Amino acid sequence: MTSGPVIACTMGDPAGIGPEVVLKAIAELAPRVAAGALRPIAVGTLAQFARTDAALKLGAEFVPFGAGGAWPRVEVVEATTSETPVAFGEGNAETGRQAYAAIATAVAMAMRGEAAAIATAPISKDALNRAGYHHAGHTELLAELTGARDSRMMLVHGDLRVSHVTTHVALARVPALLTPERLRRTLDLTLDALRRLGIARPRLAVAALNPHAGEGGLFGEEDDRVNVPVIAEYRARGLDVSGPHPGDTVFVKAAAGQFDAVIAMFHDQGHIPVKLLGFTVDRATGRWTGLSGVNVTLGLPMIRTSVDHGTAFDIAGRGIAVASSMVEAIEHAAMLAAGGVP
Amino acid sequence: MTSGPVIACTMGDPAGIGPEVVLKAIAELAPRVAAGALRPIAVGTLAQFARTDAALKLGAEFVPFGAGGAWPRVEVVEATTSETPVAFGEGNAETGRQAYAAIATAVAMAMRGEAAAIATAPISKDALNRAGYHHAGHTELLAELTGARDSRMMLVHGDLRVSHVTTHVALARVPALLTPERLRRTLDLTLDALRRLGIARPRLAVAALNPHAGEGGLFGEEDDRVNVPVIAEYRARGLDVSGPHPGDTVFVKAAAGQFDAVIAMFHDQGHIPVKLLGFTVDRATGRWTGLSGVNVTLGLPMIRTSVDHGTAFDIAGRGIAVASSMVEAIEHAAMLAAGGVP
Repeated sequence: MTSGPVIACTMGDPAGIGPEVVLKAIAELAPRVAAGALRPIAVGTLAQFARTDAALKLGAEFVPFGAGGAWPRVEVVEATTSETPVAFGEGNAETGRQAYAAIATAVAMAMRGEAAAIATAPISKDALNRAGYHHAGHTELLAELTGARDSRMMLVHGDLRVSHVTTHVALARVPALLTPERLRRTLDLTLDALRRLGIARPRLAVAALNPHAGEGGLFGEEDDRVNVPVIAEYRARGLDVSGPHPGDTVFVKAAAGQFDAVIAMFHDQGHIPVKLLGFTVDRATGRWTGLSGVNVTLGLPMIRTSVDHGTAFDIAGRGIAVASSMVEAIEHAAMLAAGGVP
Repeated sequence: MTSGPVIACTMGDPAGIGPEVVLKAIAELAPRVAAGALRPIAVGTLAQFARTDAALKLGAEFVPFGAGGAWPRVEVVEATTSETPVAFGEGNAETGRQAYAAIATAVAMAMRGEAAAIATAPISKDALNRAGYHHAGHTELLAELTGARDSRMMLVHGDLRVSHVTTHVALARVPALLTPERLRRTLDLTLDALRRLGIARPRLAVAALNPHAGEGGLFGEEDDRVNVPVIAEYRARGLDVSGPHPGDTVFVKAAAGQFDAVIAMFHDQGHIPVKLLGFTVDRATGRWTGLSGVNVTLGLPMIRTSVDHGTAFDIAGRGIAVASSMVEAIEHAAMLAAGGVP
């Protein structure tokens, strides 16, 4: 019998690479499962997991949740029944329905305490929309399902951690969204997450909104108006929060271990450095060869990690998807779970 | 006697690391100078170059421009006279005056055809302001001196080249500045520069302004309104221009050789990837150990390259400044000069 924290792994959109990376990750983590370090379970439709397993000749042995055991055994929670698998490569209302069911089931398990965390595979927003679920993204859907007030995205690659004050909004809306309240919430959630990861005195760097941190107001006044005073507040409380640091060099310093996390003001500012360091592309074919990085949602009443890549409909069902991000998402979820549920 | 294109190297702010990196770069490039590949000359105040040389025991032999020769010979053009060197580590009205004179002299040489290109060391905008020169940056100053209509910044690190539609402006102003005219000008200047670098059919990727390229209008309409139609225009003319590509993955692909240049919409989007790949920091001390990268100004009536780091007043005069970016700036200027003056 296995032990370790239960990590509910949602299959994501069943027409994408989600079921594949979930199964591959569970296979890769078998020694850790056998050692009792963690217990990833597959949440979704059994038909799609079975089809993926057959197409890729992975050799999984599907058992119901509770049966335990390490790979080739895979504990499955069937979120919704579907006797026929969906076709790889195309999201639609049916794949959106199944993807949603997997998420809702995993969330319910976490809320009931049956899972210590959830780790999610990529969904198609378009497919979810067709199924009648309208959200700006995965995180927003989770926020609604859990009644979360105000969550934040933290991306992690190795020792580089980046929390975002804003993410999925038009760039034009970002300056107005940068308020003391939003920044404080981002700082608080990040400090809390780092402490749960065992960092007693986290060193946070706040990236500037504007070039050169606004250069004394010449390139925008938001850094002086919002970031400077909020950073001063935290420092006055004895916390190691610094900045605003010019965005173009703060990530170099963070990647070199000078900070435990960077607070990014907007999507591209935080996503570019993490993906540049975590993703690799084959020079000859242009195909992704490495997808390293974890997306952690801060501020939910549960631990949630995610891969930081998409559904990759174009390569689904071919067995070439890279599962490293899913492996890291599961590992990271277990690490956070060890620090206690938020 | 040496030959090769004359590259006028401005000393930058004399209280910073500019004179040091200019001398070190000329020393490092000695074999290339002796081979006739290029001819870097030092433009600034002789007193400051001499003081730097003495403090750092570099062993330069200063000769007037025209005397020729490779290191230890350094051809100097004295932009303004100053019998006493300024103190390292502090910009002021006097250092701003000298920095300005060096730039004005180098520009005049290029305009008269005496220099094939200029390569500039870092200045202090604050010192220039104190000296009575008010500009948003080095590039803006050059634009005024040369009467350039509309220039663009291209950052280069190895095969990664990034041109910017906007640079030194508040983030809040960026969406309104993204117009078809600005994008076309950026594309045209970048295509021209790449051809001068010997790339017959440049592959350009346009980065999106908004997350996920706006996700069909959900996160902003600028990508659909401006980037999509302008890209279509260029493609209709048979040019290899693609996008808008989501900003968080396009630089990974460009760094892997999938594109010859990326068109970034704003400062941090383009600067973060180049500096993350080009700059390195010592993990123990937090000090910069590598500063690789070149800043090329497109759209001036002359070739101009620059280091992509600052004055580093804190380490000036100590002999520990890294000259790699200046070396690359001089080399890049010579490469562009070989393709013909714009």
